[in-house]
Amino acid sequence: MTRSSALLTDRYELTMLTAALRDGTAHRRCVFELFARRLPGARRFGVVAGTGRLLSLLREFRFGDDELRFLRDARVVDEPTLKYLADYRFTGNIVGYREGELYFPGSPVLTIEGTFAEAVILETLALSVLNHDSAVATAAARMSIAAGDRPLAEMGSRRTGEESAVAAARACYITGFDATSNLEAGRRFGIPTMGTAAHAWTLLHEHESDAFRAQIDALGTDTTLLIDTYDITRGVRTAIDVAGTELGGVRIDSGDLPLVAAQVRAQLDSLGASRTKITVTSDLDEHAIAALAASPVDSYGVGTSVVTGAGSPTAGMVFKIVARESTDGSWVPVAKKSAAKATTGGRKTAFRTRTDSIATSELIAISPRFDSLTDASSTYDARALQVSLVSAGEIHSEYEGIEAVADARMHHKSARAELPVSALALSRSDPALETVYVTLDETLGHE
Amino acid sequence: MTRSSALLTDRYELTMLTAALRDGTAHRRCVFELFARRLPGARRFGVVAGTGRLLSLLREFRFGDDELRFLRDARVVDEPTLKYLADYRFTGNIVGYREGELYFPGSPVLTIEGTFAEAVILETLALSVLNHDSAVATAAARMSIAAGDRPLAEMGSRRTGEESAVAAARACYITGFDATSNLEAGRRFGIPTMGTAAHAWTLLHEHESDAFRAQIDALGTDTTLLIDTYDITRGVRTAIDVAGTELGGVRIDSGDLPLVAAQVRAQLDSLGASRTKITVTSDLDEHAIAALAASPVDSYGVGTSVVTGAGSPTAGMVFKIVARESTDGSWVPVAKKSAAKATTGGRKTAFRTRTDSIATSELIAISPRFDSLTDASSTYDARALQVSLVSAGEIHSEYEGIEAVADARMHHKSARAELPVSALALSRSDPALETVYVTLDETLGHE
Repeated sequence: MTRSSALLTDRYELTMLTAALRDGTAHRRCVFELFARRLPGARRFGVVAGTGRLLSLLREFRFGDDELRFLRDARVVDEPTLKYLADYRFTGNIVGYREGELYFPGSPVLTIEGTFAEAVILETLALSVLNHDSAVATAAARMSIAAGDRPLAEMGSRRTGEESAVAAARACYITGFDATSNLEAGRRFGIPTMGTAAHAWTLLHEHESDAFRAQIDALGTDTTLLIDTYDITRGVRTAIDVAGTELGGVRIDSGDLPLVAAQVRAQLDSLGASRTKITVTSDLDEHAIAALAASPVDSYGVGTSVVTGAGSPTAGMVFKIVARESTDGSWVPVAKKSAAKATTGGRKTAFRTRTDSIATSELIAISPRFDSLTDASSTYDARALQVSLVSAGEIHSEYEGIEAVADARMHHKSARAELPVSALALSRSDPALETVYVTLDETLGHE
Repeated sequence: MTRSSALLTDRYELTMLTAALRDGTAHRRCVFELFARRLPGARRFGVVAGTGRLLSLLREFRFGDDELRFLRDARVVDEPTLKYLADYRFTGNIVGYREGELYFPGSPVLTIEGTFAEAVILETLALSVLNHDSAVATAAARMSIAAGDRPLAEMGSRRTGEESAVAAARACYITGFDATSNLEAGRRFGIPTMGTAAHAWTLLHEHESDAFRAQIDALGTDTTLLIDTYDITRGVRTAIDVAGTELGGVRIDSGDLPLVAAQVRAQLDSLGASRTKITVTSDLDEHAIAALAASPVDSYGVGTSVVTGAGSPTAGMVFKIVARESTDGSWVPVAKKSAAKATTGGRKTAFRTRTDSIATSELIAISPRFDSLTDASSTYDARALQVSLVSAGEIHSEYEGIEAVADARMHHKSARAELPVSALALSRSDPALETVYVTLDETLGHE
């Protein structure tokens, strides 16, 4: 682990910088846009996550002695570039979707405005954070929908990189999960943590009953006992023998869950433990959770599937230059032309149009200026989707840190509440909302 | 980012510790094993990666004031447990497969011996690192096989978490990739870095020729020009116009690659640039690389696919207690019984048997002692697969750091050279080697 985030960067950004400092284009003002051409895994909507983490990493994006020494020794850049980097500080503007917001193909999730030099070198870091966290959040939202009112815990740390695990816990919490197993996520982001015991705890003891008794002694009768180390029916009986009928819960981590959950519920009830809850944690994804909707399950723990994006481990967002200052000072929209990877040039402002409080489209207005768009939201029943995250290099701290995570969680809930019902289905589909582009007149703010 | 790795841990490990300190089982000696029940994605072999990173994280696994304050404030553990954690230091032994080694179902990739207390709390960290890095390495090995002698670069940082990106670059390099785009991987692990320019570089300029000229001026004629921003045929012509026929290379990042590569090669040759190389970088995976084997491509850059494990983003390794000390001081093999997740109890020593230098099986000897197994390797033509990574808490530093990465890369090459040819095919299959368990007599070291 390093304290500067500046080298979490692809080399080509610094070689471009070298060339740009040499030919004088380094200081041209540019607009870069971070967006997805399509949604991961034919989902109906995506969820933006990672913005707050990115802002914190941007604070640490400094080229100190260690970073400069490496770049010099490895001959990555020349001396003028090292000099530029030594003083580097992002002084531009970033606007973007709020964390927890939904996104659709083409949504301008992040817009970075600054000189070419200062903006281009943020590409990899911005994409790493947003692509990872948004992929997890997008998967998590579907599981949260499938779980309905039943509590949902994220416990997949062991299935992903150790730092990605912390970010995944954060993305899940924003998207409606209630807790995580990951302690660092608890410390860093204030997310509730959960967990009681693994199979190793039972196997450490001569008898399952010894393990259960010791756990109850240490953690209280309200704890959750893992009852499938040997035989589930015997495990349930032993659990109630030891804990009594006030046992908080039992956890099932194997087997055919709808069948086993029903059997365990019946057994608990027959033993008089009708208030003892059942948690299931075996290889769950959104489809398995949905299949358990009618089963007597009280809460879910999800691991592998959510932290790896349920089949779509990356959100596929890209970072593209969309406008630049011309030699005469005017703004020019620019766009790549190559087949299948074409981009839409120009700076964009995004709105979610609504009818009777239900979202109807992702309206993207293309304009060379941001401030010309205020009028657009009065033309439509539309909610503006972008907020100012960084102004002239100043990071708006309300969008990072522990409180921002809680805010993003609330924002996600309200954004999801606007969706049409069809958006909540789990099957593969086109996006639930169509992305509509409009071109606004620069001076009048109208189409 | 945090400097202590101690909270990269699932809460249940610390609640088990609390209960174990209370009932006296905390100080029982145990053996935990990290292994995979099956290979990710029906691959023919797996590749172990992450071991060196884990050793470095183990050095930082300390509960300092910040960590203890969080655990106290969040009421994760009680006061006796906080006291234990304040003095925590792993004092046990770890043996494991060398980094870069191949693994098969059941291979004891890591074996941790210590008290229950000191070993159980390493579960999540060990799994996070090994599951992530081995998933990437296993995917990378297949790409390396498909690429043959053509250079292969990893450039997927933007598609995975920012710290996982560094680990992924490391895993790819160990497994035969030649370079990475990730600068932090260059600094931290000594991996060669590469990269020249993105589409933004061309779009920053009025004309493609201006961009090419500036890049040549800054980086020399030997650089690689990205020629598909507008029209590939025009791009190639402009590139040679500007750079001359000694241009180092062109990069193609879009289109139907076999077709486009052939056209570009023909055009370059017709322009006299027969030594100009072609790099392709568009959505490559092992199958796309294999499909380009007959195309005039000189090198490959792989992004999304390799850093997300080419469809298997986690290796599915688990961490299980396999033996513990009994109350009378003897060792008892222990194992979970639940269907489909059963484990094999007992401490294991692993060998790769060979005939005429070709690997024939993964031989796993079950024994309550490690040192009884020396004889086994003389009984068979077999290579011992485990090395001592930590002895009585002392980390063997030759397995971490920059040199260990280079060593692991060499070791991987030699381990892969032992495989039967059938193991190198890309199609789904059973593992290339069968895992054979033998039970050795404790005192004689024979079956």
